[in-house]
Amino acid sequence: MKQVRVGVVGATGYTGSELVRILSRHPHARLDIITSVSRAGERFSDVHPAFRGIEDRTLAPLSALSEHELDLLLLALPHGASMEFVSELGTERFRIIDLSGDFRLRSSAVYEEWYGRAHVSAERLSDAVYGLPELNRADIRSARLVANPGCYPTSVILLAAPLLKHRLVRSEGIVIDSKSGVTGAGSAARSGTHFPWVFGNFRAYGLLRHRHTPEIEQALSDLADRDVRVQFTPHLLPIDRGILTTVYAEAVEGVTDTMIRQAYRQSYGGETFVRVLDGPPSVKNVRASNYCDLFATFDSRTNRVVGVSVIDNLVKGAAGQAVQNMNIMFDLPEDAGLEQPPLCP
Amino acid sequence: MKQVRVGVVGATGYTGSELVRILSRHPHARLDIITSVSRAGERFSDVHPAFRGIEDRTLAPLSALSEHELDLLLLALPHGASMEFVSELGTERFRIIDLSGDFRLRSSAVYEEWYGRAHVSAERLSDAVYGLPELNRADIRSARLVANPGCYPTSVILLAAPLLKHRLVRSEGIVIDSKSGVTGAGSAARSGTHFPWVFGNFRAYGLLRHRHTPEIEQALSDLADRDVRVQFTPHLLPIDRGILTTVYAEAVEGVTDTMIRQAYRQSYGGETFVRVLDGPPSVKNVRASNYCDLFATFDSRTNRVVGVSVIDNLVKGAAGQAVQNMNIMFDLPEDAGLEQPPLCP
Amino acid sequence: MKQVRVGVVGATGYTGSELVRILSRHPHARLDIITSVSRAGERFSDVHPAFRGIEDRTLAPLSALSEHELDLLLLALPHGASMEFVSELGTERFRIIDLSGDFRLRSSAVYEEWYGRAHVSAERLSDAVYGLPELNRADIRSARLVANPGCYPTSVILLAAPLLKHRLVRSEGIVIDSKSGVTGAGSAARSGTHFPWVFGNFRAYGLLRHRHTPEIEQALSDLADRDVRVQFTPHLLPIDRGILTTVYAEAVEGVTDTMIRQAYRQSYGGETFVRVLDGPPSVKNVRASNYCDLFATFDSRTNRVVGVSVIDNLVKGAAGQAVQNMNIMFDLPEDAGLEQPPLCP
Amino acid sequence: MKQVRVGVVGATGYTGSELVRILSRHPHARLDIITSVSRAGERFSDVHPAFRGIEDRTLAPLSALSEHELDLLLLALPHGASMEFVSELGTERFRIIDLSGDFRLRSSAVYEEWYGRAHVSAERLSDAVYGLPELNRADIRSARLVANPGCYPTSVILLAAPLLKHRLVRSEGIVIDSKSGVTGAGSAARSGTHFPWVFGNFRAYGLLRHRHTPEIEQALSDLADRDVRVQFTPHLLPIDRGILTTVYAEAVEGVTDTMIRQAYRQSYGGETFVRVLDGPPSVKNVRASNYCDLFATFDSRTNRVVGVSVIDNLVKGAAGQAVQNMNIMFDLPEDAGLEQPPLCP
Repeated sequence: MKQVRVGVVGATGYTGSELVRILSRHPHARLDIITSVSRAGERFSDVHPAFRGIEDRTLAPLSALSEHELDLLLLALPHGASMEFVSELGTERFRIIDLSGDFRLRSSAVYEEWYGRAHVSAERLSDAVYGLPELNRADIRSARLVANPGCYPTSVILLAAPLLKHRLVRSEGIVIDSKSGVTGAGSAARSGTHFPWVFGNFRAYGLLRHRHTPEIEQALSDLADRDVRVQFTPHLLPIDRGILTTVYAEAVEGVTDTMIRQAYRQSYGGETFVRVLDGPPSVKNVRASNYCDLFATFDSRTNRVVGVSVIDNLVKGAAGQAVQNMNIMFDLPEDAGLEQPPLCP
Repeated sequence: MKQVRVGVVGATGYTGSELVRILSRHPHARLDIITSVSRAGERFSDVHPAFRGIEDRTLAPLSALSEHELDLLLLALPHGASMEFVSELGTERFRIIDLSGDFRLRSSAVYEEWYGRAHVSAERLSDAVYGLPELNRADIRSARLVANPGCYPTSVILLAAPLLKHRLVRSEGIVIDSKSGVTGAGSAARSGTHFPWVFGNFRAYGLLRHRHTPEIEQALSDLADRDVRVQFTPHLLPIDRGILTTVYAEAVEGVTDTMIRQAYRQSYGGETFVRVLDGPPSVKNVRASNYCDLFATFDSRTNRVVGVSVIDNLVKGAAGQAVQNMNIMFDLPEDAGLEQPPLCP
Repeated sequence: MKQVRVGVVGATGYTGSELVRILSRHPHARLDIITSVSRAGERFSDVHPAFRGIEDRTLAPLSALSEHELDLLLLALPHGASMEFVSELGTERFRIIDLSGDFRLRSSAVYEEWYGRAHVSAERLSDAVYGLPELNRADIRSARLVANPGCYPTSVILLAAPLLKHRLVRSEGIVIDSKSGVTGAGSAARSGTHFPWVFGNFRAYGLLRHRHTPEIEQALSDLADRDVRVQFTPHLLPIDRGILTTVYAEAVEGVTDTMIRQAYRQSYGGETFVRVLDGPPSVKNVRASNYCDLFATFDSRTNRVVGVSVIDNLVKGAAGQAVQNMNIMFDLPEDAGLEQPPLCP
Repeated sequence: MKQVRVGVVGATGYTGSELVRILSRHPHARLDIITSVSRAGERFSDVHPAFRGIEDRTLAPLSALSEHELDLLLLALPHGASMEFVSELGTERFRIIDLSGDFRLRSSAVYEEWYGRAHVSAERLSDAVYGLPELNRADIRSARLVANPGCYPTSVILLAAPLLKHRLVRSEGIVIDSKSGVTGAGSAARSGTHFPWVFGNFRAYGLLRHRHTPEIEQALSDLADRDVRVQFTPHLLPIDRGILTTVYAEAVEGVTDTMIRQAYRQSYGGETFVRVLDGPPSVKNVRASNYCDLFATFDSRTNRVVGVSVIDNLVKGAAGQAVQNMNIMFDLPEDAGLEQPPLCP
């Protein structure tokens, strides 16, 4: 089978190292270049010592990209840097999967409102395909530019989609309470992620204004075929990896647990990476894997549906989903490189 | 100043040891007897080695209670055992603060529905005072039997009370998403609390049916002056101590952040143990203390109020609140024995 | 390439599930049967929910082994049960890798002294090969019965071997201070592994009498060609996976850091799974992998060599090393099924 | 009883906040001023939000010290800053307890060797009293300048002292393997203390060259009445608070466990804050307290004594010991302000 020739752009952070971790064992991808702006010239395994003896190549500067024939670039750049990169290099020479937030929103006005800066590549927003395979597989296949979903949105949308698509819940008044491990905050040390402060701690953050809110709303609006506004509250879990999302939505008249089960089975019966459970999922059961485990149930006391989903934020919430998208784009088995069972315990 | 003569009944669990921890430094309480059914005859410090040299007395059997003149019993017994104890011994000889769930609900029917057994002391349910000092101080003062609130309900009710009392939110559709440390699950080792399983993990449990639901609903109904049904979902945090509760409620027409702030100030301006913050609270900032830190804000996008509260589940959620109740019952300074700052880091 | 037909005996514990995790992705092994005594008849993925959709077969009773043509049995049984199993079934029908302590010691008297029971299969102790590939590769290749090393001994022996073999340290007075994650204590919930007790805690255990002591002494004696007695102290780390061992040994006259480096390079230059570092290793850099990272240095102030090694106790310390042994026994690439990079963060 | 008038100099770090935590409940100390260089002008409770409502005073600049009549200054400054402070202000106006390493070593040459800078106040080194109350109580009582011991040295010296004083072990070849929680690394966020890296991790650091080595050697040399060199290796535990130290020493001829027990009883029988246990201690049993729990035993197989001690590095290893020293210096009950039981769980 063919080998996709891949470059990872921006490999000093967690998303970058996770891409390398997965790609290093991918049977049909060949990682040809790994770049870094801040640490170009250093060995990848000096930046990420776990890779000693596994990936010892030197981090290349961005300029070195021109020396390679590549099929695909995986951009693990900060928000803002991605759109500048795409604006400069375009998507003609290589297909691109962007793991930042820069191409997830279709509206540049909404982008500016939530990201606090103008979009420099607004004309491409309509071409970018939102890379959630379980919803957009067909479009991903042919996309030149895939916007890899945010970690929280992945956990939310996969959980809420069957409920909205099957019209089991009202689209008004949805409440989303998410909890994420600290790798979601990035690899740079800051006072908010200092070990003695996070250890034994738990807190909410980004109340009312987290940037994943419009991304969630855009996807849920598509599913509901009407404007959806959600209440989204993220919290910081004292663990390294993992997101758990709890969703609350008002049931429409007549909903039963059987209908809910059927909706989920219909949506995900053929999906490799979504596991519909009979009870609430646990973050650790998906650690280091590309799975999303989920469960939803109807509360007749309150006439509400309560759903819970879990993912590994660095895998299904970032690098794993990017590889899943790559597999789709290049007609590879969708689980290629992603077959490892979760790491539990 | 006088010394209240106290007995702790049931001291092998976490609530019992936390009572002893606090009472050992209380300036106006004298701990005269500590009992245990399962480990009577052993030294308290053999069961709880942290107390070596501090509390080395022998755990007495229940029968030894009759040998002591006591003003107050603190019951740290399992649900079910408390009501049997009270049923047998009554509340004439000593005043009682019960830390179990047995006397928190006014309706024996509701108790039976959620606790799965008939109440054996139903006639006393109407006498028992729900011991949340910030709401019921006057009644606590004269009570013979105080039902110490559950840990989750304490975090919920203190957070929601000002909103409901001041009619800032609708009483329908309240969603409560709570997260608790593992000490809330008790001191007995079980597979669900085995370290390798909980470490790095996070999960929801007790969906739709947690026993603290009717307790919360009873209190919020009183505050709203109408029947309130809530959606309550607890989760298990991989930490030892601490609860964080996030509450979502629909705002009534015209609510502003200023009105919210005023409601909280009015409710808690004179309270020692409730701290109203200007931003979301952190569990670690109340660790080992009797504080409840909280924050609420209005989201004009969604017309909803989002509130967050934190407590130490073993202190303000159990033993500390019991001592606060004791202080009120015996006309002591309300913070006697509870003045220690939080332990952070 | 051929497929080794494998059975895992005893799959309800952590070692068993880790074997299944690794074997499920092994290119040249076919897992034909998974047995359990205590939970036979249940689905593997009901016992280990992380495997839902990955390994859903039913756990077979031991009796079902006779229905399968197998090349190899991997025994993940408790100490004592293994020797009874081997005593009954022998090693003629299948080759065996035993992950318990039952066949690691060559002397039945030493076994009895440290394990507190007589050995029921003493006549096989001399046939069993101690399965540390980096030291015993040739013997492993042809062995019928391989005794897979203990987790602590693996971390100790790999670290100490070059020093003793190259006569860089004296064999008297070696001090070994080891620290292990809690999975090393097994999957059964006990008070000593209850989350609220282990969280934020750290302690030594098994002082002077841990069963891995004679196993370490046997291996080091072989290396030093004389009787070695060590001081071994294990400690319990509040993490799930990982062992770090610190070894202290008196240097012989004239030792330099260069000589130490050369000894390690010579010993491990061709080894896939031992990485010799330039500074102290970190447990997380080998998590979920079969690597042993190590470092040793000479202290001229004290005339002592200090060495530090890390492994994942469930992989290189148990299941991974067993698969490495299997690969050797069946002439497969030694890293087959073990190529995954460590999981960090 | 009198009130000691105290100033805390340098209150933005963990040692400073821990001093305030303890002093805020001290019955005989009055905290008159809290200074900070970097954050002067901010409220203490804005820097340390756990103290909201408890200690809301403004952090004063150093210059404000002259406006106060003080009996004692507690210096929680970085190494280097302390000696400059003392060099400028002297010890005539107030007695001083310095929590840095600047006055712990009697020899300025040794200081320069290990701290990498010349000592600017070398003439005071001989006046400074090493503030380990259990060994130096008499000298502390009258000292003008007390050097509060390092966290590791406290755990080591208390453990080793009875063995050396009673000549139960040889003073050559002592090996010290210590493990500390992350607060020991200070409150400033750095990559080495970033949560996702420390979580689930464990590592050694400062091999051969940790600055606490000469401090330990100075104290043990005094005890042994001869030059002692030790092998000291610190490790970083993934917890916030706590140190566990394991010490290995060769026994002299004829040592028994009874002799060891007697030596410890004789040394610490009258001590409030040292608890001699019958088995290995646990870090969590001293959390948030001034206790040092310890245990030592003789291994007849190896002719070695193995000892284990635990402290809370921020309390007995820093602020608590400083308050204990203050109590001694001002003829207060030695446990004043330090009576809180440990926080476990």
